[in-house]
Amino acid sequence: MALCAFSFPAYISRATISDPQESTSLSSHLLSAPDLPCVPPLKHKQVKRRQAGGVRSSLSEKGEYHSQRPATPLLDTINYPIHMKNLSIKELKQLVDELRSDVIFNVSKTGGHLGSSLGVVELTVALHYVFSAPQDRILWDVGHQSYPHKILTGRRDKMHTMRQTDGLAGFTKRAESEYDCFGTGHSSTSISAGLGMAVGRDLKGRKNNVITVIGDGAMTAGQAYEAMNNAGYLDSDMIVILNDNKQVSLPTATLDGPIPPVGALSSALSRLQSNRPLRELREVAKGVTKQLGGSMHELAAKVDEYARGMISGSGSTLFEELGLYYIGPVDGHNMDDLVSILQEVKSTKTTGPVLIHVVTEKGRGYPYAERAADKYHGVAKFDPATGKQFKGSAKTQAYTTYFAEALIAEAEADKDIVAIHAAMGGGTGLNMFLRRFPTRCFDVGIAEQHAVTFAAGLACEGLKPFCAIYSSFMQRAYDQVVHDVDLQKLPVRFAMDRAGLVGADGPTHCGAFDVTFMACLPNMVVMAPSDEAELFHMVATAAAIDDRPSCFRYPRGNGVGVELPPGNKGTPLEIGRGRLLIQGERVALLGYGTAVQSCLAAASLLKQSGLQITVADARFCKPLDHALICSLAKSHEFLITVEEGSIGGFGSHVAQFLALNGLLDGTVKWRPLVLPDRYIDHGSPADQLTEAGLTPSHIAATVFNVVGQTREALEIMS
Amino acid sequence: MALCAFSFPAYISRATISDPQESTSLSSHLLSAPDLPCVPPLKHKQVKRRQAGGVRSSLSEKGEYHSQRPATPLLDTINYPIHMKNLSIKELKQLVDELRSDVIFNVSKTGGHLGSSLGVVELTVALHYVFSAPQDRILWDVGHQSYPHKILTGRRDKMHTMRQTDGLAGFTKRAESEYDCFGTGHSSTSISAGLGMAVGRDLKGRKNNVITVIGDGAMTAGQAYEAMNNAGYLDSDMIVILNDNKQVSLPTATLDGPIPPVGALSSALSRLQSNRPLRELREVAKGVTKQLGGSMHELAAKVDEYARGMISGSGSTLFEELGLYYIGPVDGHNMDDLVSILQEVKSTKTTGPVLIHVVTEKGRGYPYAERAADKYHGVAKFDPATGKQFKGSAKTQAYTTYFAEALIAEAEADKDIVAIHAAMGGGTGLNMFLRRFPTRCFDVGIAEQHAVTFAAGLACEGLKPFCAIYSSFMQRAYDQVVHDVDLQKLPVRFAMDRAGLVGADGPTHCGAFDVTFMACLPNMVVMAPSDEAELFHMVATAAAIDDRPSCFRYPRGNGVGVELPPGNKGTPLEIGRGRLLIQGERVALLGYGTAVQSCLAAASLLKQSGLQITVADARFCKPLDHALICSLAKSHEFLITVEEGSIGGFGSHVAQFLALNGLLDGTVKWRPLVLPDRYIDHGSPADQLTEAGLTPSHIAATVFNVVGQTREALEIMS
Repeated sequence: MALCAFSFPAYISRATISDPQESTSLSSHLLSAPDLPCVPPLKHKQVKRRQAGGVRSSLSEKGEYHSQRPATPLLDTINYPIHMKNLSIKELKQLVDELRSDVIFNVSKTGGHLGSSLGVVELTVALHYVFSAPQDRILWDVGHQSYPHKILTGRRDKMHTMRQTDGLAGFTKRAESEYDCFGTGHSSTSISAGLGMAVGRDLKGRKNNVITVIGDGAMTAGQAYEAMNNAGYLDSDMIVILNDNKQVSLPTATLDGPIPPVGALSSALSRLQSNRPLRELREVAKGVTKQLGGSMHELAAKVDEYARGMISGSGSTLFEELGLYYIGPVDGHNMDDLVSILQEVKSTKTTGPVLIHVVTEKGRGYPYAERAADKYHGVAKFDPATGKQFKGSAKTQAYTTYFAEALIAEAEADKDIVAIHAAMGGGTGLNMFLRRFPTRCFDVGIAEQHAVTFAAGLACEGLKPFCAIYSSFMQRAYDQVVHDVDLQKLPVRFAMDRAGLVGADGPTHCGAFDVTFMACLPNMVVMAPSDEAELFHMVATAAAIDDRPSCFRYPRGNGVGVELPPGNKGTPLEIGRGRLLIQGERVALLGYGTAVQSCLAAASLLKQSGLQITVADARFCKPLDHALICSLAKSHEFLITVEEGSIGGFGSHVAQFLALNGLLDGTVKWRPLVLPDRYIDHGSPADQLTEAGLTPSHIAATVFNVVGQTREALEIMS
Repeated sequence: MALCAFSFPAYISRATISDPQESTSLSSHLLSAPDLPCVPPLKHKQVKRRQAGGVRSSLSEKGEYHSQRPATPLLDTINYPIHMKNLSIKELKQLVDELRSDVIFNVSKTGGHLGSSLGVVELTVALHYVFSAPQDRILWDVGHQSYPHKILTGRRDKMHTMRQTDGLAGFTKRAESEYDCFGTGHSSTSISAGLGMAVGRDLKGRKNNVITVIGDGAMTAGQAYEAMNNAGYLDSDMIVILNDNKQVSLPTATLDGPIPPVGALSSALSRLQSNRPLRELREVAKGVTKQLGGSMHELAAKVDEYARGMISGSGSTLFEELGLYYIGPVDGHNMDDLVSILQEVKSTKTTGPVLIHVVTEKGRGYPYAERAADKYHGVAKFDPATGKQFKGSAKTQAYTTYFAEALIAEAEADKDIVAIHAAMGGGTGLNMFLRRFPTRCFDVGIAEQHAVTFAAGLACEGLKPFCAIYSSFMQRAYDQVVHDVDLQKLPVRFAMDRAGLVGADGPTHCGAFDVTFMACLPNMVVMAPSDEAELFHMVATAAAIDDRPSCFRYPRGNGVGVELPPGNKGTPLEIGRGRLLIQGERVALLGYGTAVQSCLAAASLLKQSGLQITVADARFCKPLDHALICSLAKSHEFLITVEEGSIGGFGSHVAQFLALNGLLDGTVKWRPLVLPDRYIDHGSPADQLTEAGLTPSHIAATVFNVVGQTREALEIMS
């Protein structure tokens, strides 16, 4: 459903569009480039940059890349879009070059989403040149491509804080700027939101434009289709820009090399790129020839080309079936074309929804990104001169990797095991599975709803599907989990990565609610491993549970360093059986998932102060380990449940069990520690955990408090 | 997202296809009828029925309708599809007539979904004739059209138990029959599930067919698009039958007359119906001319027509863009055509996914249904001779109606209030709103995801959107609620109808989880009215809350009969303020939503036994009324929370508050009453409440138990 944590190296299908300096493959697929005269030199300022690959020259005349901040004389004069309004096209091209080099330099210092931002530099400049944000609403779907937009809308001086605690968000965010008219993170929402804004504008009698920029990957999600269908019906004026960079499967984090785009839509888009556009938009065509003239002759000719392409076309496309006027394909790195088309569409009123198909290249203008399989979708800090990313050397691997290894081990032993993910082969680790079992791994595109019901269908046929979806993206398939899986008691296994706090990606990607919304389902087995070895065992457990659905959640980040099971293959756990880790007295910490590690650390802190408390690992939220909980309740004054999740989850299930068995009637005093009742902004994992009040110190302080040692509680927090 | 409770009379747009006895409008839009010779008389058995409108003749030669069970000599010999295999086409037509009359008779006795079942009688017979269920998988999307299927698959003798306690389910249900290969209730899942079954078949090396039947309404949901996109990519053999009866907006329950179909897709389908099919399917064409001959000449000619239609077409349709072979449109009431096409597609291997566009008429063959605006989508018991439905005379109106009235009253006073629903104008009552405010009501089609983000976009522009979606359908928009509304703290109001148990529609439509999944969201105000006057106040409250999202849940069924506020306009409540209804002692019942009524009734029962207990109405699950809860906790031995919802909801929120404030440390003993941890089958509301253990008697028994009067507890339950 979205872009995500990019702490791992990324991969992506090699886009077929090459650097125009080296190939004409792009040109031959676009209307503008081959047929039209070159843009004539305009009489403006110094132009020492090349027409394409501009960032090179802005960094070095020799095509070298420097680690210093590049000179950006024009960009330095642009703090807000209003400052661009009097620039010539030629100056806009210079601005593009400088902006691109600024993005590269900034992201090299902070890490972040580089490839998609580089792909839309021209588009961003063109949009802010032609339209008047914030009155005109510009929505960036997913939002990871919004870095150039942020630089041009008053946030350039904060780019060094990107994705850091108290810094800029990695996506658009309403609270951050009035230029971010809609918050993003999850994909495919922009047409819906934009349509709402367009209808709202009409109801309010305003005249502003609404423009949404959505990638071809995001177009595979059902919500985009629902929105287009409704836009075609309502016929409100709005502009949908399809940013087609052949990213139907997302390169979010990578454990593998390039994977071709999935989904039939990608073939349809390819056909559009290789054929003439299919539908007339006469108003645009007429407008172009009428309004442009004189020195703008070449531009007019160019736009006319597009328009004639439309008029000559017959038949219809998917978008036209849904009621959108189709314009394109347009070279998304050609400023002349972009500006002309956008100006024309802007000045053509009462056209209803228009879709402009723009072809861009992810990573554009930074050869290291262009050449990389993942187009530098998400990068760590790197050296701009070499493109080399600075990666920390962790002693353990990511939970994601352990999950993939565990699943592969199970699948080696059971040929019925299959894996499904939603455009997240890298992010979920399933590309490793795909490499081992090419016929047993299914990337369904950004389509979580379908992924889950598809898995249900597989389960009906006796397969053993593992559906790997991030916790926060499971929200998008919730009804399918309830209605198609749990209600029918089908044995679909849900592997929910990125559970709990996720660091730099922030609240959109935080897996806060999964325990709550999964554990209320009657047939679901709900588990969470406390370390990577437990994850192996839970994958084995899920494989073994074949009479009902099950799920397990695990965090972003690396394992804690425990010994892995022999052969990296887990052993099924007894369903609903937790484990006692430390036997102490007075206070029992009952942790769920990663919180168990924090409980253990808290116990260590407390031990230093002479408190020997009990720590248990619940392992299961559903079914609960009744015997363990009874035992803890009867032998301790306080039972503290600890989880990195919202209210209504593990702690609530424990409390209800205790209450119904009379164990809260004076037997034990229960205290729940859960995520706070607010969204926690992006930041370092440590900062987030502190903000959440779930660090070992917080847990220890809670213990001190309940046993009356309030002074020690204050001390440990200071 | 689906079909639903049909306790109200229904409406729907008048389909343009008329009875072929009276009009040729259908013929002129289909390939087969006008161009082809009539089907020659085949030499089989007696044929005393007319070729069309058969049910009339099966009931009466004079076109009258009788209340007695019609004679069904052929159907009487068919218990399973295997019994149909040797029938001639002519006999199949007789079977169709008898089956149709049997459906009418059965539904007249039980109520149920009549219109959609009547529309697919021919299709059902053709499918079971050509394919071999249960080895071949036949999936009925939504499932409300599955009555003929149930009759032909061993369940005819149970049709009189339809939708009743312990009777047949109103949808397909895996546990009910091996012929129901996938359970339904919510719409648009069938292509996903069918694709999973097709891929599973291939992996398992089996050879069966997979056929899904999906309506044009269900095609507006994003999941159908996601699934088609993936089906086109995977290219597994499967057959998608688009049952096009122009029902893009659903006629579920009605408070209004006909509404035209919404969504651009409906225009696209209309174009398909009026134009030649657009794409070649050469294999089918070749197969037809090769394999059929001799006495089958006319059939061959007919199929050839279709095939030529395909071959002659150029361009592509939405379905083809997504990678499905398109065949159609086919007259869904022409057995010859249906059987021929299905046989051809079945015998043509390795074609990948095929979409057969079948045009049907909802309510077909029963003139009262055909003429009705709602096509008798869902009906109460009725007299087959007159079509007159037997409706109970309730003293109060449905909560749905009160909601609509309340919202209209608010909208009269505030022009910024707008309403959004997902193809449920009747079911949500918003057709009343539409009638009053035609420009302020938005039916987005079966597209809950889009509905919610669209509402978020409207809220961004300063509108005050009310998004009315059934509780169980909110599950399909959960991510949008979290990510687009709550995280951004946008003031979208969610009116969640059908909360709690819903009676005959059963577990797919039960609103069990909404409190749990909404109340864990940080910014959401979560309310539930205890009676219809409170609903008016909560609509007013939601209208007044303009700085964050809010939601309120209310049940299926009628109000309890309290006095309505003056002018049917509510007064905003203080946020987070509950109310004390009865001051008693020892035990406090704290109810949420409709459960408050059960608490009051329980208090009455207990009073008769001399127990004067306290009853309070929480009104808000979030924010909780801390003062009220503290007060109850401090002045009672027991606090029992009561709600018609799952674990993790209201009771869990109360418990966490109590625990964090030390009120569970001996102050009060908490007992939660929630829905049980299992799905409750369809049945009468009273039976369901009993099964759930939430009747006044159950509540009273719980009180007796906690105070130690176990004998009285047993007595009250006996």
